[in-house]
Amino acid sequence: LRGTPNRAPPVIVSELGERRLLARIHERLATVSQKDGLVIGIGDDAAIVTPGRNRLTVLTTDAQIEGVHFERAFSSPEDIGHRALAVNLSDLAAMGAEPKWALLSLALPDTAEVDDVDGIVSGIARSAARYSVGVIGGNLTRSPGPLMVDVTAVGETRPRRALTRSGGRPGDELCVSGSIGAAAAGLEMLRSTRDSEACIERYLRPEPRVRLGIAIAQARAARAAIDLSDGLADAAVQLAAASGCGFEIDAGLLPIDRNARQWWEAKGTDAVMAALSGGDDYELLIATPRAWSGRLRHARVRVADPPLTRIGVLTKDPASRVLLRNGRREDLPAGFEHWGEGR
Amino acid sequence: LRGTPNRAPPVIVSELGERRLLARIHERLATVSQKDGLVIGIGDDAAIVTPGRNRLTVLTTDAQIEGVHFERAFSSPEDIGHRALAVNLSDLAAMGAEPKWALLSLALPDTAEVDDVDGIVSGIARSAARYSVGVIGGNLTRSPGPLMVDVTAVGETRPRRALTRSGGRPGDELCVSGSIGAAAAGLEMLRSTRDSEACIERYLRPEPRVRLGIAIAQARAARAAIDLSDGLADAAVQLAAASGCGFEIDAGLLPIDRNARQWWEAKGTDAVMAALSGGDDYELLIATPRAWSGRLRHARVRVADPPLTRIGVLTKDPASRVLLRNGRREDLPAGFEHWGEGR
Repeated sequence: LRGTPNRAPPVIVSELGERRLLARIHERLATVSQKDGLVIGIGDDAAIVTPGRNRLTVLTTDAQIEGVHFERAFSSPEDIGHRALAVNLSDLAAMGAEPKWALLSLALPDTAEVDDVDGIVSGIARSAARYSVGVIGGNLTRSPGPLMVDVTAVGETRPRRALTRSGGRPGDELCVSGSIGAAAAGLEMLRSTRDSEACIERYLRPEPRVRLGIAIAQARAARAAIDLSDGLADAAVQLAAASGCGFEIDAGLLPIDRNARQWWEAKGTDAVMAALSGGDDYELLIATPRAWSGRLRHARVRVADPPLTRIGVLTKDPASRVLLRNGRREDLPAGFEHWGEGR
Repeated sequence: LRGTPNRAPPVIVSELGERRLLARIHERLATVSQKDGLVIGIGDDAAIVTPGRNRLTVLTTDAQIEGVHFERAFSSPEDIGHRALAVNLSDLAAMGAEPKWALLSLALPDTAEVDDVDGIVSGIARSAARYSVGVIGGNLTRSPGPLMVDVTAVGETRPRRALTRSGGRPGDELCVSGSIGAAAAGLEMLRSTRDSEACIERYLRPEPRVRLGIAIAQARAARAAIDLSDGLADAAVQLAAASGCGFEIDAGLLPIDRNARQWWEAKGTDAVMAALSGGDDYELLIATPRAWSGRLRHARVRVADPPLTRIGVLTKDPASRVLLRNGRREDLPAGFEHWGEGR
């Protein structure tokens, strides 16, 4: 609706002033800024929470920056807020931790519209409510450059139940949750002029595998786990390296999203490589011995049995990163390093 | 030394690539990335720590952004790193909490020099070592705009020992630690062409009152506390508002830094107003009943008796914000609201 002639000009944050802006933000967070265990919330020098009995504290932080992690042309303010929390909850999910608290650090250009700030905060609040996360503090500042949303998420896990990256052993099966490639294809669809919505939602509104991660950790159903924020290939490299292993992935087993595959095949893109390298899926990759399949089934049943696909195996030689494809063994291309997308 | 003809061109972060940059950062954090209570540190999806027995968790986050909170022309990379941690430790000090852990979220322009990143991280590491803070995780991303350093600090406090802003009562004395105004004058000195260093160190390398805050909390020597990040006037307004009180401050009692006062008087600036509104002091303002003076003395003796000056009192009427000056009662100007310096 921007640019509609009769609309009043939007109010920008530098006109509103810091106190009124903070008051608006607090109001939008009201329903998620209180929670059991909170001692001191928004409005003091710091927040205070009570750790759960016999629980460990799990901490992660991840920033979303305009022009790097999102484009205002594609993502609504609510999408931006949703994603800023979701990427952090995905990290907690990859540790098998239960999300508890979040801190929100916002850097806003002087010309940011107050309506958009409202939308970002509402997106965070809705997502926080869905995952029972208390948004209990943060920071607000001016940005002379892009809009930034930096979230710190705090979760809890029981001693010896956390899913690290480093626990994998040769012979462990590699399994991935859900499907891969949809978010990467969705971003391509948004950037193209063609009008297709099949994968866009997966890009705009990633859903972290919070319940699955917790269930796997509680059932001790995996030896290692990582989330796919930078894509499956990167995740496999990181998990295997942390575990001192190599890996083999079978291209024929990859659960590539059907719409993403169609999209890439229509464009003449190699769907396997696109899905392996595409980021933003926020699925989990786990390593688990075959003998633990009963535990894994138990964990999945507890969370409505989400798809979990065996895609390969950890191997002994740490230097070995093999993609099995059409009966041939290819080395996984080393070119998956990126600079600074930080997803 | 930049621009010296024979110097090799500096390496910028986009040339180095993310993995090598992360490796350098981890190396510089090596001495402060391990600590008792750490279960999983840098290198996994999230960090895991063990909360102290019978302790509450204290959480705060504060961002430092180039062009808003610091200028590269004035602050060295080490200064920037130091400040990024210090402002967060000051928030913990204002809660009386013991600092424990920090997460570091860095957003770097493509053209940032690797040497400067090294310096920022070294500044954080040195400060973390000094305050026994474990730097156990974070995030690295590209910035299409300014350089940003966002730190989340995690501390601990005992139940019912935290210093909030809201505990003050009418009649409580207001006391401020150390001296005020030096950092604001220091920034003016840096911006001027005159060559004076008297206050500059206070601006560049603020020292949070970590030990004093903890000692006051443990001795239950104050009913309310706040740090002076946005200046004494703002801190008094915030503490009094949270406590449902008004206040009177006596201008003649303000511990204005001697060099700052000289600087302002030479310029014809009202030193009292400049010191009241100047930010970046990172001292503590506390509210404490006169009857608790024994506890307060006890707390101060434990931390080498830092200066603590009685500057005024909390009063009953929440609308009353009085500055006593030369025998007259002035209303404190309402113009201390800023947009987005977020200090």
